[in-house]
Amino acid sequence: MLLKDARFVLTPGKVLENESIVVEDRRIKSIGESDKKGKVIDASNYAVLPGLVNMHTHVSMNLFRGVSDDKELQSWLEEEIWPLEEKLDGEKCYWGAMHAFVEMIKTGTTCFNDMYFFMDKVAEAADKIGIRGYLGHGMLDMGDEYKREEELEEASRVAEELSENFSDRINPTVTPHSCEICSEELLLRAKELANKHEAPLHMHLAETHGEVEKVLKEKGKRPVEHLKDLGLLDEQFVGAHGVHLTEKDIKILSGENATVVHNPCSNMKLASGVAPVSEMLQKNLNVSLGTDGVASNNNLNMFEEMKFTALLQKLSRSDSTSMPLNEVVKTSSENAGRALNEKIGKVEEGYLADLILVDIDSIGMTPLNSLKSNLVYSGAKVDTSIINGEVVMEDGKVKGVDEQRIKKRVEEISSELVS
Amino acid sequence: MLLKDARFVLTPGKVLENESIVVEDRRIKSIGESDKKGKVIDASNYAVLPGLVNMHTHVSMNLFRGVSDDKELQSWLEEEIWPLEEKLDGEKCYWGAMHAFVEMIKTGTTCFNDMYFFMDKVAEAADKIGIRGYLGHGMLDMGDEYKREEELEEASRVAEELSENFSDRINPTVTPHSCEICSEELLLRAKELANKHEAPLHMHLAETHGEVEKVLKEKGKRPVEHLKDLGLLDEQFVGAHGVHLTEKDIKILSGENATVVHNPCSNMKLASGVAPVSEMLQKNLNVSLGTDGVASNNNLNMFEEMKFTALLQKLSRSDSTSMPLNEVVKTSSENAGRALNEKIGKVEEGYLADLILVDIDSIGMTPLNSLKSNLVYSGAKVDTSIINGEVVMEDGKVKGVDEQRIKKRVEEISSELVS
Repeated sequence: MLLKDARFVLTPGKVLENESIVVEDRRIKSIGESDKKGKVIDASNYAVLPGLVNMHTHVSMNLFRGVSDDKELQSWLEEEIWPLEEKLDGEKCYWGAMHAFVEMIKTGTTCFNDMYFFMDKVAEAADKIGIRGYLGHGMLDMGDEYKREEELEEASRVAEELSENFSDRINPTVTPHSCEICSEELLLRAKELANKHEAPLHMHLAETHGEVEKVLKEKGKRPVEHLKDLGLLDEQFVGAHGVHLTEKDIKILSGENATVVHNPCSNMKLASGVAPVSEMLQKNLNVSLGTDGVASNNNLNMFEEMKFTALLQKLSRSDSTSMPLNEVVKTSSENAGRALNEKIGKVEEGYLADLILVDIDSIGMTPLNSLKSNLVYSGAKVDTSIINGEVVMEDGKVKGVDEQRIKKRVEEISSELVS
Repeated sequence: MLLKDARFVLTPGKVLENESIVVEDRRIKSIGESDKKGKVIDASNYAVLPGLVNMHTHVSMNLFRGVSDDKELQSWLEEEIWPLEEKLDGEKCYWGAMHAFVEMIKTGTTCFNDMYFFMDKVAEAADKIGIRGYLGHGMLDMGDEYKREEELEEASRVAEELSENFSDRINPTVTPHSCEICSEELLLRAKELANKHEAPLHMHLAETHGEVEKVLKEKGKRPVEHLKDLGLLDEQFVGAHGVHLTEKDIKILSGENATVVHNPCSNMKLASGVAPVSEMLQKNLNVSLGTDGVASNNNLNMFEEMKFTALLQKLSRSDSTSMPLNEVVKTSSENAGRALNEKIGKVEEGYLADLILVDIDSIGMTPLNSLKSNLVYSGAKVDTSIINGEVVMEDGKVKGVDEQRIKKRVEEISSELVS
């Protein structure tokens, strides 16, 4: 496939102008040549970007859009979200996930990192639509031994299933929920399972003040120290949120080459606090971006998440030079590739062809004095999405799925759940 | 005109379902009847909302999108923005404004409140495209008597011009820049001019810590007290930003029935601080919303501004129940109508027909458990816009202007300015 004469190409080093990209065998073969075998896409009115990577999601929660807002966190969870989750099943999660994937692809996301339930059904939806995914069964035991075994069994089953019966786009992860509601035993065995699959270990980390206080009280140390002492921290570790991290926590995580996923909309909406992202980056801690589930956002738009990231750091540090464009853009793509140890997130020869074409002629993208500024601050309209070398969206239309049917099913399931 | 069978109608009291709206002689004649004289618009797949009102803009700054970001405020102004503004003229401002109006209409804004330069050219563009506008010549004198006379003369000329030679959608305002760079003499004479035209007096208010400090040092009182003592505060007063307001300031402004315009994106991007919006609303101070100019945002999307408003208050107060949906929605429309003393901002019989039709079937708007939640948190796509009873956009296409030409001219002018 040839992306011909792209007006702009966003590479790690710089923004190239009027270059072509050859895609062969799932990968970017070359930038700057014009091999015309196969499909040719005229990219002269577009900017080619690495597909965005949403590093912390619960995709099936698209079923819960708008069911409950403006609540206090604990009552929101206990009175609204958890009772709804009790009613979920594999089919419902399949449709919720499918709905999320359409939303993601339309807004430029080509890869997601998810933890939730019925994950083989989520993987089935991902495989059908063609998105790249990292998936794990969300585990918690609250110290209950029976529950622990059940959770580990399901996590292990899902990881096996994903490794064996799905395409190379679908990857297993291991996902204990958090230090707050997972026992040491569960965390240790989760890490064993992750090692067995050479998979990322993805969990919530220091999201709320309450979580940190609880771990401090029970373990006499903060979550990051607790995880370090258990041996869970390494370059495979992906901690979502990282709102309440101290300078020492950041140093530990950085020293272990771990990754933190920043979720600014969710953290603001649930009033969790501001993650010290600028401090993390200064200490060379890898930071990527996520939207969290739709119930606490309420969308999956990574462009919007970039804007929130930039603006929130500037505000919280009282410094408008904080979190400049280059850093923000990296968190949305390149840094995720590092976290997942996969050749994604860069437009570079040899990298997997996960690429998006952004319309540079929309009213919001003009005048185009700075591509990165317009992408992050003004918002972008994605026209075409290519994942693993396959075109999954063209002219804003996601291929191979019936979008009307997906919306209808999700509306039905959502109505049924809340009734 | 008939908006037939609207799936939802967002009225002040509640969200109506499957109702029709009759528009006659620029106004909403009835809700719930079905008089089929004139044009019929099938609204069965849409939510009808009051058009959004952007209460603090500098529309011609669309020319400056992306020219400079991530800078410290003072050097951003002095080294980047002011030198560009020196090069502006009426024609450039016309095209910048026209570009902004296309962007605004596409994102649901039907009325704007602007202060800048060459305002009769801005009014000309507004009149051509059909948007409702409140416009004033931005004045500052920094104590210079000659400059003061020049500014007042231009402000007076523009106000006369707007009152006499434009449509009923175009309204004069009087707009001294701020207490920081306007002398008492200028402020007093600005108020006289506003009274003469029975027009709003719109200025920046307590945007930065530096502004408050400067006024405190020079006048021995804070900006709000200074303005009160000069007699500038009343129900015609519109203060943009209001970031650094004390409890006493809020009480004074509320007592005078003044309005504050909240600009969360701009305040975050320039690291100005967080306006105490929740406190203002608790004290019955009228709060409306604005985007500020594109150079410090960098778009004019009022739906995005609503999301930032809600999330920023929740975060800054560490309370996820702060700034609930009903309050946010009001700031975008109803409260602006109160500020401008005009029958806009509500879908109600007798109100001016400034209405937008939002697509409720987009992926981001489904499932639709709560219309207001999806509008504020998920983001909306506007299909049709009606201003003053006239259809100015249909099927996402703004009528009567050549959008390609506008984008091309703005790109050319912008390139010329920054070169």
